[in-house]
Amino acid sequence: MKRNTKVSTAVIRRLPRYYRQLSELQEAGVVRISSSALGESMGLTASQIRQDLFCFGGFGQQGYGYKVDLLREQIGEILGIGQGHTLVVLGTGNLGRAIIRNFRFSANGFRLLATFDINPAVVGTEIAGVPVYHTDGLEDFISAHAVDVGLLAVPITAAQELGDRLAGAGVKGIWNFTNYEITCARRDVVVESVHFSDSLLALSYMISQREDPKEEET
Amino acid sequence: MKRNTKVSTAVIRRLPRYYRQLSELQEAGVVRISSSALGESMGLTASQIRQDLFCFGGFGQQGYGYKVDLLREQIGEILGIGQGHTLVVLGTGNLGRAIIRNFRFSANGFRLLATFDINPAVVGTEIAGVPVYHTDGLEDFISAHAVDVGLLAVPITAAQELGDRLAGAGVKGIWNFTNYEITCARRDVVVESVHFSDSLLALSYMISQREDPKEEET
Repeated sequence: MKRNTKVSTAVIRRLPRYYRQLSELQEAGVVRISSSALGESMGLTASQIRQDLFCFGGFGQQGYGYKVDLLREQIGEILGIGQGHTLVVLGTGNLGRAIIRNFRFSANGFRLLATFDINPAVVGTEIAGVPVYHTDGLEDFISAHAVDVGLLAVPITAAQELGDRLAGAGVKGIWNFTNYEITCARRDVVVESVHFSDSLLALSYMISQREDPKEEET
Repeated sequence: MKRNTKVSTAVIRRLPRYYRQLSELQEAGVVRISSSALGESMGLTASQIRQDLFCFGGFGQQGYGYKVDLLREQIGEILGIGQGHTLVVLGTGNLGRAIIRNFRFSANGFRLLATFDINPAVVGTEIAGVPVYHTDGLEDFISAHAVDVGLLAVPITAAQELGDRLAGAGVKGIWNFTNYEITCARRDVVVESVHFSDSLLALSYMISQREDPKEEET
């Protein structure tokens, strides 16, 4: 996929939203959509949409708009959905368990291979068909299976240490749910943190102002 | 807090990050910081920072930078942290339980008053000191306690119905963890959805490209 310019983080952050929106449109049977209609459904302007997609080579046709299935497929490709990424989950507490049971990894192009914990009560069991191994075997597993991503759902006190072990074992990315900003010495390892508080504070702002978050977007 | 211009969603989304970063700086004992140093620590340019904060009346002083505690307090005020917002959690499965137990509501200016479920095994119990009531009593509780926000951690199949009930009962906002895009007939009710998949797909993109997400930001 040819990229015309260096892509900003803001655009990268919008791509999954495009993908989600286009998946919904496709499920609803929509075949093609204009940039203004796509924009309206996402709270973006038509020119914003055209500009974003132009970063990746531009897909629309003047006066026709976008073919929903094709655009979804192309954005999926940009996002790496077809690359067969693999993932392991560290921590099988409530949060880890909720994610293992309910998150649709495969819909996002990921295969969940295994989970790791130190609790003897769960090591050796399965959660939703996924085996739970002891964390002692983490490095061997990652290198044997060329695991791409480690998901951290461990207590805050263990976050940095396990982040270091994941990076040392050769993962490409860490998906961090610990609410602790881990630092990563290896610059080639991407850390993506999920901050629930950022979401709640944005909501707090909006109910304080009673602004509609979808009114506009830059 | 005077606002100079209509604030874009992108700026609103950055405010919680400023707040988080400034809280960390304050804890680390930093008294004042230049816009370029603040920017560098957050992967933003100094001019971006000045522009963002200018939306809210501009706080910095030429040649001095920002006082960390003051700026944090002012951004906290903009975010509505001091307004004593109240919240209830719907659903005490793994995800609800993880959030109830671990999320620091008070650090974000929220008081968690109660949780609701329909499971007889948990109704009448407490989770981390928070009472679990039957969902039948939801509307009465919300109106009696003027609850600001309802957090949805229920199964997808119950998401829309309970979203409707929250809105009907008079909450100002819905914090939606169900991974289902609920629609809200009342335009004065703000829906903030947490999409884990948006985060994973951004990570997927970054490991596919091996780009550092913090390199630049628009």
